Amino acid sequence: MTPDVDEKYMTIALELAEKGRGKVEPNPMVGAVLVKNGEIVGRGYHHAFGGPHAEIHAINEGGTNGKGATLYVSMEPCAHYGKTAPCVDAIIRAAIARVVMPVIDPNPITSGRGLQKLKETGIEVKLGIMESQARRLNAPFFKLMQTGLPYIIVKWAMSLDGKIATHGGDSRWITSEESRAYVHTIRGQVDGIIVGINTVLRDDPLLTCRLEGGRNPRRIIVDGNAVLPLHSRLIKTIGESEIMVAVTENAPHERIERLKHAGCKIIRTKGTDGRVDLQELFRYLGEMKLTNILVEGGSKIITSMIEGHFADKIIVFIAPVIIGGEGAMSPVRGKGVNIMGEAVKLAEINIRRFSNDIAVEGVPEY
Amino acid sequence: MTPDVDEKYMTIALELAEKGRGKVEPNPMVGAVLVKNGEIVGRGYHHAFGGPHAEIHAINEGGTNGKGATLYVSMEPCAHYGKTAPCVDAIIRAAIARVVMPVIDPNPITSGRGLQKLKETGIEVKLGIMESQARRLNAPFFKLMQTGLPYIIVKWAMSLDGKIATHGGDSRWITSEESRAYVHTIRGQVDGIIVGINTVLRDDPLLTCRLEGGRNPRRIIVDGNAVLPLHSRLIKTIGESEIMVAVTENAPHERIERLKHAGCKIIRTKGTDGRVDLQELFRYLGEMKLTNILVEGGSKIITSMIEGHFADKIIVFIAPVIIGGEGAMSPVRGKGVNIMGEAVKLAEINIRRFSNDIAVEGVPEY
Repeated sequence: MTPDVDEKYMTIALELAEKGRGKVEPNPMVGAVLVKNGEIVGRGYHHAFGGPHAEIHAINEGGTNGKGATLYVSMEPCAHYGKTAPCVDAIIRAAIARVVMPVIDPNPITSGRGLQKLKETGIEVKLGIMESQARRLNAPFFKLMQTGLPYIIVKWAMSLDGKIATHGGDSRWITSEESRAYVHTIRGQVDGIIVGINTVLRDDPLLTCRLEGGRNPRRIIVDGNAVLPLHSRLIKTIGESEIMVAVTENAPHERIERLKHAGCKIIRTKGTDGRVDLQELFRYLGEMKLTNILVEGGSKIITSMIEGHFADKIIVFIAPVIIGGEGAMSPVRGKGVNIMGEAVKLAEINIRRFSNDIAVEGVPEY
Repeated sequence: MTPDVDEKYMTIALELAEKGRGKVEPNPMVGAVLVKNGEIVGRGYHHAFGGPHAEIHAINEGGTNGKGATLYVSMEPCAHYGKTAPCVDAIIRAAIARVVMPVIDPNPITSGRGLQKLKETGIEVKLGIMESQARRLNAPFFKLMQTGLPYIIVKWAMSLDGKIATHGGDSRWITSEESRAYVHTIRGQVDGIIVGINTVLRDDPLLTCRLEGGRNPRRIIVDGNAVLPLHSRLIKTIGESEIMVAVTENAPHERIERLKHAGCKIIRTKGTDGRVDLQELFRYLGEMKLTNILVEGGSKIITSMIEGHFADKIIVFIAPVIIGGEGAMSPVRGKGVNIMGEAVKLAEINIRRFSNDIAVEGVPEY
């Protein structure tokens, strides 16, 4: 088979994988295509955390056609018992002749073992095809597995003159309904949302995913001094999704107890000047197996995410309105760079249009 | 004839008109299509200031086919002797039966007289088809004729976090080569470029159109105290295109004389606190028949253009880089709005992509 044919089927497997977005985490999105004599005889993807893997769906659909077929799967099949039985066993049972995969599973429990077992059984294995696409698809999963830290998406919405609020602090709404609906789509795909306490005090946000059937992310408040008000809409809706409050060791015990009593989960970190240690917070969230985190502001938190090189992806919504004002808030402040050569460039740029707004998405290259 | 057919030919006339952009000013862009028995027998557009009008080109191409034909022309034909003989006479001579036009010529010398003369001769006239498109095409010409003021295009280039320079004042370069090439295209289409003296002192720009065969706009410096340095690149290249310096009445006589001696044209305006009276400057530029002015910054001038409601069009280039910095310059400062409802919305949004940059263009609705 020519590499072109392999790429053609792997592209389909990657597209299938995408369908699991927002439902499979902290598992990776995986898609699989079973091909016999140049025809697709089975397709599958990992639908939801805890459910059957992509390979199983494809093999089941293929039935007896699996014998001698080629399986395209967007990540190494697992070789361990987790929530489900090992996929390699199913592949062997189906008498599949060849398995094509872009990349080894970075999960240390299985990494490389699936591939090895297939080879030992005499199944032809091809590794490395469309590797960068496969890594990009599951960038959060790879990051969590390799560093123990969640993948951080930083988002802000600004006017055409680069303001995230008026000098009076008003930001409702800078962007169109279409843009805001897309933010809710993203919320439904992440495991957690982070905002700073100033944003809570100013906007009293809900931070839920308000789309039909959307999954609510955990709501994480960076609140060094534990001042989150009990009458906030966050606390009032605590039944809708968990609230984690990241505080410093120096936060008053009494306030912490009050938040605990209201049902919040407290994450205690070191922290100087009442500022939460973000590295420690992310390490904790990684241990909790949160794969994707969306950071929604305000400007202080956004600046920390960029200055600390925490942001893995940046999404900026820009609306065609002019706010002006010497005192109006800019999205990224802090020290900043002195010369243009030091500015943080974004790669993998993706531009979308929502009504008259645009959303620019990219991966910062620190 | 159905309106659809008229619109079809008027669309072609408007497209032809567009070809004159940057060459016909301060005349309007005009296109014409001559149609006989459902076939186009002549096309024309106004190529360059001082040359034949669109109608003449189309009629000449049509030859004897003009008899009984319909002429589609994107603005009322002229009835006066200017640089050329009146177009209505040529239309009558060619025995054209019907003239379709979107809009009356706003130039007071001819306004309505062309249409009247055609009607008096018994030629059928249809007015008003695709009027808004025709007005938009020549918005600068309409503005100049109706208000005596030039059409002001305000442009800035900023990072994805809304900065037009680093805190150290560096802005070379925020955007890609492709974006900058497009700025030179715009420069070649306007009659003048305005920058503030701070931009000159900081960047020492040339403000010429550096495209093969591009027309150089006049360079206009808003310089209340007449401090433009004689060693600046502007003064050194004064032979390439005129330099106008707008000063206040209070600017030191000696400095003004020095600039005059270097070949600059001085525009004296009222002005408090050393700030040039922009309304007066624009009125003067309008009297000089400058139709389009491009304002390129810096932030002080841009802010005045928006606060004073001078800007007729805004073009913002946004590059996927993060500059950051509490002290980094924002494009629009000043007082700004307090609540989002007061923000200036842009209409007629046009979004272009230049490599990884985007350019958002729109018309502010004050």
